[in-house]
Amino acid sequence: MELVTRDPDWQSRVRASFQAQHFMTLLGAELVHLAPGAVDIELNMRAELTQQHGFFHAGATSSIADSAAGYSALSLFEAGVGVLTSEYKVNLLNPAKQSVLLARGRVVKPGRTLTIAKADVYGLDDGEQVHVATGLFTLMSVAGVKD
Amino acid sequence: MELVTRDPDWQSRVRASFQAQHFMTLLGAELVHLAPGAVDIELNMRAELTQQHGFFHAGATSSIADSAAGYSALSLFEAGVGVLTSEYKVNLLNPAKQSVLLARGRVVKPGRTLTIAKADVYGLDDGEQVHVATGLFTLMSVAGVKD
Amino acid sequence: MELVTRDPDWQSRVRASFQAQHFMTLLGAELVHLAPGAVDIELNMRAELTQQHGFFHAGATSSIADSAAGYSALSLFEAGVGVLTSEYKVNLLNPAKQSVLLARGRVVKPGRTLTIAKADVYGLDDGEQVHVATGLFTLMSVAGVKD
Amino acid sequence: MELVTRDPDWQSRVRASFQAQHFMTLLGAELVHLAPGAVDIELNMRAELTQQHGFFHAGATSSIADSAAGYSALSLFEAGVGVLTSEYKVNLLNPAKQSVLLARGRVVKPGRTLTIAKADVYGLDDGEQVHVATGLFTLMSVAGVKD
Repeated sequence: MELVTRDPDWQSRVRASFQAQHFMTLLGAELVHLAPGAVDIELNMRAELTQQHGFFHAGATSSIADSAAGYSALSLFEAGVGVLTSEYKVNLLNPAKQSVLLARGRVVKPGRTLTIAKADVYGLDDGEQVHVATGLFTLMSVAGVKD
Repeated sequence: MELVTRDPDWQSRVRASFQAQHFMTLLGAELVHLAPGAVDIELNMRAELTQQHGFFHAGATSSIADSAAGYSALSLFEAGVGVLTSEYKVNLLNPAKQSVLLARGRVVKPGRTLTIAKADVYGLDDGEQVHVATGLFTLMSVAGVKD
Repeated sequence: MELVTRDPDWQSRVRASFQAQHFMTLLGAELVHLAPGAVDIELNMRAELTQQHGFFHAGATSSIADSAAGYSALSLFEAGVGVLTSEYKVNLLNPAKQSVLLARGRVVKPGRTLTIAKADVYGLDDGEQVHVATGLFTLMSVAGVKD
Repeated sequence: MELVTRDPDWQSRVRASFQAQHFMTLLGAELVHLAPGAVDIELNMRAELTQQHGFFHAGATSSIADSAAGYSALSLFEAGVGVLTSEYKVNLLNPAKQSVLLARGRVVKPGRTLTIAKADVYGLDDGEQVHVATGLFTLMSVAGVKD
């Protein structure tokens, strides 16, 4: 499957939209990799992101997975078309207690109306990598929405 | 289906665990209703919780849905048994641009190892209520984990 | 939420489409209830539908759930617009070993492009009813497809 | 991740359990590949398996995906432990109108109680391959159940 971008400014458009997601700023998430149909987001552990056992809250884990999947879709959209998450499903595979989370969003099937993407989240610690979550996402193209 | 609590202190246990979720504090979420197998969580809109169009980020919406579903399950657990989210799926139904989000977590099927719950999230604005998300959650009982 | 039909012939259109689903005939499924945004399908137990423990195969259970959800969506579509399942998620709650399965498909959120529906499947036996599955479905409107 | 079998007779156990799934016989599905944590199932197109547009019914597609995922999990179980599907989610990516469907089930995370697997379904036609579905599955180990 070839993943083709449709907007020469796709990179700056994705970066600008990510910066406009105040929720990513609140979490402390960073966009660390950007390619056609592929976006990686990192998140450093801190107490504010934890659930009751001291792990990353499932909501924090899936928030960066959702943004990574959503921006992997947006990277392929025409200019002037925005992205909304229609639905997603996440399986939490291992306790997310590492010092960094890395979410890798990848387009599985691009489409005019719906784009299907997956995201895998890894916990990183001193060179070790644990697969903490995997998910499937449906992203919707929204014409006439600035993104 | 009768939903039976197994721990006389279930209410204080759920409230204490919710308060130990630093991520809920970061979001500004509040536990507003607590009954056997039923937990409601509210979240007030503020800029820090938004995505690029100014709506609640899907990650914020599903974070409170996840906690509401998880605590609806925990409310039925024996003392000394903790709860972890195994997986969930969320459909985002309408733009979440209201001034308050209310997530209602409800146990669908209690079980010794796995509990299935649903959560519906509503956006509230001046007496109007919009159904912004619905989801299904699998929660796992973890013996020997303080919660 | 008001569920409004858009085609005066919606009932005969849904029934004709169901009869054109040869897979429902292979299973032995019957459309037993039809209302705007609500479709029920029944399936009688027989050995051909079982998995290795003698229960209904999860595939059989979710096949009638999928058709019930899909037709609950189609019941609200304009004439000349077909329905396709975009994605779904099912939780299997109890062993499906009853003599009849009843799948109830209900529209949660109608939409021009995407309709979200849920389906609950019950196992029926001598007046007893067991909740064997619950699921969420995204259905897509396909213009220009006969249904 | 190393996928380790725990039963020297795992191959014959998986094959026997598949043959005991009468529903797979009704569909006409065949187990065509078997390795530790990896099972492939094929299904030939015929009219009995179609929905109203003449494509494979989503229920048929996900039935073989479910069995492929379930048996990829069972291949790693100890003797005397059975497998049940707890939940799954499937995205339908392209119309399934090819002459053969091939479902590839692969374990993502083995576990004592829960095993997470994925399944991808491809439509095959004269050497061409179309990705028609992708899904995530939670499989449960059931002690004391013959499988």
